[in-house]
Amino acid sequence: MAGLGKKVLIVYAHQEPKSFNGSLKDVAVAELGRQGCSITVSDLYAMDFEPRATRNDITGTLSNPETFSYGVEVYEAYKKAALSSDIVQEQKKVQEADLVIFQFPLYWFSVPAVLKGWMDRVLCQGFAFDLPGFYDDGFLKGKSAILSLTTGGTAEMYSKTGVSGDFRYFLWPLQHGTLHFCGFKVLAPQISFAPEFASEEERRGMVASWAERLKTIWKEEPIDCRPPWYFGQ
Amino acid sequence: MAGLGKKVLIVYAHQEPKSFNGSLKDVAVAELGRQGCSITVSDLYAMDFEPRATRNDITGTLSNPETFSYGVEVYEAYKKAALSSDIVQEQKKVQEADLVIFQFPLYWFSVPAVLKGWMDRVLCQGFAFDLPGFYDDGFLKGKSAILSLTTGGTAEMYSKTGVSGDFRYFLWPLQHGTLHFCGFKVLAPQISFAPEFASEEERRGMVASWAERLKTIWKEEPIDCRPPWYFGQ
Repeated sequence: MAGLGKKVLIVYAHQEPKSFNGSLKDVAVAELGRQGCSITVSDLYAMDFEPRATRNDITGTLSNPETFSYGVEVYEAYKKAALSSDIVQEQKKVQEADLVIFQFPLYWFSVPAVLKGWMDRVLCQGFAFDLPGFYDDGFLKGKSAILSLTTGGTAEMYSKTGVSGDFRYFLWPLQHGTLHFCGFKVLAPQISFAPEFASEEERRGMVASWAERLKTIWKEEPIDCRPPWYFGQ
Repeated sequence: MAGLGKKVLIVYAHQEPKSFNGSLKDVAVAELGRQGCSITVSDLYAMDFEPRATRNDITGTLSNPETFSYGVEVYEAYKKAALSSDIVQEQKKVQEADLVIFQFPLYWFSVPAVLKGWMDRVLCQGFAFDLPGFYDDGFLKGKSAILSLTTGGTAEMYSKTGVSGDFRYFLWPLQHGTLHFCGFKVLAPQISFAPEFASEEERRGMVASWAERLKTIWKEEPIDCRPPWYFGQ
């Protein structure tokens, strides 16, 4: 029971339960459950999660209704416990988690908009960071995070000499600019390359290797989430 | 009348018309209008633009209703002219434009979710690219694009030795992975650093320098949108 007492949040962004992303999410739930972890899944499409950052995220009156500043208003609302309930619920899940897994297909070298909206709205100033209070001092320090993603392109395309460049390049905004900024320890990404072009057997292999990795996930050391990991010297 | 007959689409993602982003959008409309350009603005928050990529983007029946694949279904729907009307309208605007300007505040080293959703949904396979038919062969070749963005952090933070790394690092997924992938010629980004920490005079200076740049925008050469521009070497 390697994960006994550990809490895991899986933030999952795929429309189809029977998809390859769905299988990766399901196998994580099964393996982590077997370890004795307590698991919560935020299934963003199923929740019809709101991605747009708007005035609706603040309940009650604004501090400056004349000129709306999302960042200022959300920071104030966080301190007054006046954020909308969907944001508060997600923040509670993050607060309780030891590990957050993001499971998604790569859309335009990044997360799908529904997951970008989760990051934009949930990881707000006051909750996830403050100024000062970011990067190694981010408020979510002590927690770990993993990006588990699928790509359309092949591993060869995402190599240093490939047309799409090293896969580490596109991870920078997500792993460093977002997760590290909030203080997360970032574990190595789990990238399943081009499952749509793979055989059924290869796809099963990718799912199995994710499950296998999760068996020892609590012993993993984080990456050194700074420029050399991404861009070399 | 440097821009006579030219068509410009401004994809604008800020909630507040009186914001600094709003001023940058307004000055672009004014300057390009003075040049004789025809200008269209997609004001994404005002339009309540849908960011989520879902089954609703396809009108009529699906090619595989058993297992929903967004990419497959949208590609088919594009070919059958069965995409939802909000996507079709944006695609028409892009098709007609010589230049697309994206005006937005940087959220998590990237675009706000509402603009990510515009990219996810509008720039679909068949319309913006095909396989093959990407990067230099992308279907939007012949058009130019500029990212005009504001940051929270200072220019010093976004330098090679700063805590957030060179600003070019976070541009990679947007400029290369998205715009270049679709064939756009990418003009140098217009970055207004930390307007919230600037004086009123400095902010006016940033708006004026954007207007000034736009006076000769039609003579600009695109950047060489490949790894050396971003990562050196």
